[in-house]
Amino acid sequence: MPTLQELACADRDRFLALLDGLYGRAGWIAERAWARRPLRTLAQLKHALADVVRTAEGDARASLLHSHGIDPLPAGATPAQRARWRELDDAYAARFGWRIAIANAGPRGTGLDAAAVIAEAERRLDGHPGIERDECLRQLHRIAGLELDRRFGATPAQGNRVWDWAERLAQHSDPGCAERGELTVTYLTDAHRACAQRLAHWMREDCGFDEVSIDAVGNVVGVYHGADRDAKRLLTGSHYDTVRNGGKYDGRLGILVPMACVRELHRAGRRLPFGVEVVGFAEEEGQRYKATFLGSGALVGQFDPAWLEQQDADGITLREAMRHAGLCIADIPKLARDPARYLGFVEVHIEQGPVLDELDLPLGVVTSINGSLRYLGEVVGVASHAGTTPMDRRRDAAVAVAELALFVERRACLQPQLVGTVGMLEVPNGSINVVPGRCRFSLDLRATTNPARDALARDVRAELAAICARRGLRFTLEETLRADAAPSAPAWQQRWERAVQAAGLPVHRMPSGAGHDAMKLHERLPQAMLFVRGERAGISHNPLESTTSDDMELAVQAFAALLDDVAAA
Amino acid sequence: MPTLQELACADRDRFLALLDGLYGRAGWIAERAWARRPLRTLAQLKHALADVVRTAEGDARASLLHSHGIDPLPAGATPAQRARWRELDDAYAARFGWRIAIANAGPRGTGLDAAAVIAEAERRLDGHPGIERDECLRQLHRIAGLELDRRFGATPAQGNRVWDWAERLAQHSDPGCAERGELTVTYLTDAHRACAQRLAHWMREDCGFDEVSIDAVGNVVGVYHGADRDAKRLLTGSHYDTVRNGGKYDGRLGILVPMACVRELHRAGRRLPFGVEVVGFAEEEGQRYKATFLGSGALVGQFDPAWLEQQDADGITLREAMRHAGLCIADIPKLARDPARYLGFVEVHIEQGPVLDELDLPLGVVTSINGSLRYLGEVVGVASHAGTTPMDRRRDAAVAVAELALFVERRACLQPQLVGTVGMLEVPNGSINVVPGRCRFSLDLRATTNPARDALARDVRAELAAICARRGLRFTLEETLRADAAPSAPAWQQRWERAVQAAGLPVHRMPSGAGHDAMKLHERLPQAMLFVRGERAGISHNPLESTTSDDMELAVQAFAALLDDVAAA
Repeated sequence: MPTLQELACADRDRFLALLDGLYGRAGWIAERAWARRPLRTLAQLKHALADVVRTAEGDARASLLHSHGIDPLPAGATPAQRARWRELDDAYAARFGWRIAIANAGPRGTGLDAAAVIAEAERRLDGHPGIERDECLRQLHRIAGLELDRRFGATPAQGNRVWDWAERLAQHSDPGCAERGELTVTYLTDAHRACAQRLAHWMREDCGFDEVSIDAVGNVVGVYHGADRDAKRLLTGSHYDTVRNGGKYDGRLGILVPMACVRELHRAGRRLPFGVEVVGFAEEEGQRYKATFLGSGALVGQFDPAWLEQQDADGITLREAMRHAGLCIADIPKLARDPARYLGFVEVHIEQGPVLDELDLPLGVVTSINGSLRYLGEVVGVASHAGTTPMDRRRDAAVAVAELALFVERRACLQPQLVGTVGMLEVPNGSINVVPGRCRFSLDLRATTNPARDALARDVRAELAAICARRGLRFTLEETLRADAAPSAPAWQQRWERAVQAAGLPVHRMPSGAGHDAMKLHERLPQAMLFVRGERAGISHNPLESTTSDDMELAVQAFAALLDDVAAA
Repeated sequence: MPTLQELACADRDRFLALLDGLYGRAGWIAERAWARRPLRTLAQLKHALADVVRTAEGDARASLLHSHGIDPLPAGATPAQRARWRELDDAYAARFGWRIAIANAGPRGTGLDAAAVIAEAERRLDGHPGIERDECLRQLHRIAGLELDRRFGATPAQGNRVWDWAERLAQHSDPGCAERGELTVTYLTDAHRACAQRLAHWMREDCGFDEVSIDAVGNVVGVYHGADRDAKRLLTGSHYDTVRNGGKYDGRLGILVPMACVRELHRAGRRLPFGVEVVGFAEEEGQRYKATFLGSGALVGQFDPAWLEQQDADGITLREAMRHAGLCIADIPKLARDPARYLGFVEVHIEQGPVLDELDLPLGVVTSINGSLRYLGEVVGVASHAGTTPMDRRRDAAVAVAELALFVERRACLQPQLVGTVGMLEVPNGSINVVPGRCRFSLDLRATTNPARDALARDVRAELAAICARRGLRFTLEETLRADAAPSAPAWQQRWERAVQAAGLPVHRMPSGAGHDAMKLHERLPQAMLFVRGERAGISHNPLESTTSDDMELAVQAFAALLDDVAAA
């Protein structure tokens, strides 16, 4: 079996021989990758191959798509499944012009069954050709990547462990959801408490944490002491609750990755010059109660006693739920951490967006968690007859909102680290033959810094006012949410960057558009986050959320590298 | 009492004396009207005064608004009404900066009660300042116009008759609607049949028609013979059914105005060289059954037997309803008119739009009934996280539809006689923090000619395709209605123009955006329509629909002038 060392020292012919047949007959990919040496790691080689394709001329990519010989349906398919597959295969080819590529080894490398392959083809048959083209190329990269693992004898042991933990944890789901195959774990349900128990068990028994507890709000806290028990600690973690019908990795990856690292430290009998405290936050999503960030908030001394009287959909108050779970409400204030005892906070999280997937990058470094502003608005004009009201005499509320939506898009495009969205848009009781008299909309504006966020909001408000003044309309705009930006602490961000480079990967810096527990810890501690690529364009808050055990392996490597980096400082 | 002759011959001082105090202290209006002589008719004078104000500098209009001394609450108001009025009056002044003007004589000149005045103020308090400013000025013109009628002893006797007929007819309303004060008269209900009976009675007993009948589809047909019984006839009329909770004048005006003219001919013992056939069409709105234009369609030989099996909301088929009303279904084909026996078709109709009201013009001449195309569409992109999806990686369905809506507006503005509307607009299940993956919309495109309509539709479709291609989206667009344009017959349009000029009014030519019975008759006969101004910016299909007895008087005058014009030809 060849080694990476051998690949690194190979001449051109040997290099091409090592990669022979990797993308079927598309030998040009390996040839162009030759120019990308030195290639120290498999991750680096895989990225180089994908990047060769991504930056190739369109014709080359098209021929790759049209010439692949992938037949993803596994041998064990039933006759009915084979018949269905032929239908799908034909329909797909008719729609897109090439045959579907699916890496049927699956995210864990252990193989998808026929039903899963068919479901994937059914889902993708409905996609946009441009998106589907890119997805097929990524599937070819995944197939090539698994083949490289095989040829070089690489097994993502840590990644597989994290993947299996996540799978095991996902067996707990709230009543009714489990039966439908949906994953829903909301605050302090039986499934939620089972997850806490399961995490605590793994931390204690499997990973060798020194202290493991479930705290007064249900956070699972594991401490692996430093060489000196009283040394400062690095705080890390993420949440284990989910949205309704959510994914298996959102939050949980940020608990399981450091757990895997501590497990390795413990097995090696190694102590760092600092402690590692891993927290599985009990509540981040605000699903059962409107108490988003309850878990991480408690660590920065935030807990609103008014929340206790909130009722869930069944009329159970938060207070009752906490008592029922045996939590000691009176102890919540004691959870606030003393910043003097911590080095900082780091968090690993699945990206929940398309950026890394599109760039064929397993990891990304977060520069800032975006600050955001949300509004609900309404423009009011005059409803009138679509036939009898001349264009120059209309007070059309919908075209005003259309102008605003395009302004939001244009304005947010001006700077790379802004996003602006009109997510809700409606002409209430609109009729085909009535000029809209009202139009309701929402605004979601985010930026990496508060000043950039506020400037965006100011411009959008001013534009709305100008549009309405010019068109003779009225408007209302109500702010419904304001969250401050949490820029990464430069020293910690740089540690993540070095950790990514250590894996042989280029550093991609990116803002986090979504909120994370790190936003809360930001109020007390320097923080920085690492993003892990999500498959399927990063779809999240959805059962389709997925990432591979290869990417998880790289996340564990990066976390371990960060620990080494801090230890060496 | 001064006469119009006296006004026409007056020198400047006498002219100003005759108009003294007409707009309170705003003597400049009369002074500027002096330059608009010769002024032959009161209608011409009223229009000249309004036009002076409409074209005056903004400051002059503002001072007129701020200095009027109108106190519209009638003397008979209760203490509670007075208290409510003070609240409204204060709120209005605080909102707009001037006090509300309401011509409390009402559309018939007989006075509004306190409740009606309060309701009007409540409605207008919510309006846009620009619209409300124009409305107040129109109310001042109405007050001045009534004062001119008083000074010159003019009474709109024919207009009052038409107004009273319409009021009497509006006492019949479908079950449940009458109790709520709503006017709904749908095909062949008791109220509908009572209206037919009432119209037939007036035609026969009050107006002196020679032949009056209710035909096989429920149309009320009155014939006033020409000097020769067998002379060709002028066909006219409109519909007496209404939309749900509709207005009193939509359709009915076009029956009542010619009835008033025939009444005068009969009283004068006058026979024209042609017959006049007035038809009250039984069904135009397609409310109870989807059989729009059933009444006028029958006159051009169109009746779809499949309609007979349609059921209304109570499960009653059209066949049962017609039998129940004693109609002879077998005779429907006989209703088709022989074009050789008719001169043409003319129709009077309330505008149902804002144009005449904004131009302070009581009458307008229709150049064409617009052809129209309707579509329902959907754009499909990819729903994604509003925070984590960068602007350049979105497939946002809503901004694509926003672009389309603005294109429709821009494109329809390029030519004066086009209208285009996105009336329905919705992101289904949109969330504030999700980039819209779908957006549904409607398109309503109309033009005075079929080629202009089709060119508009072609450009809109092409733009939608281009937007979606550029943004990587898919779309569907389903045509749901296609109606051909019905351009006015030039000779008949010119007769209406001369009739309007005969009243001393400028000719305003305009397309009809809405469909009318004339569209059906267009298939067999030359046709042309006259529009009558609607108050309140022409609101229609709404109980607020209104027009004054003064404007009705002018419509009767114009119809009489048209008859004379045809007679003289």
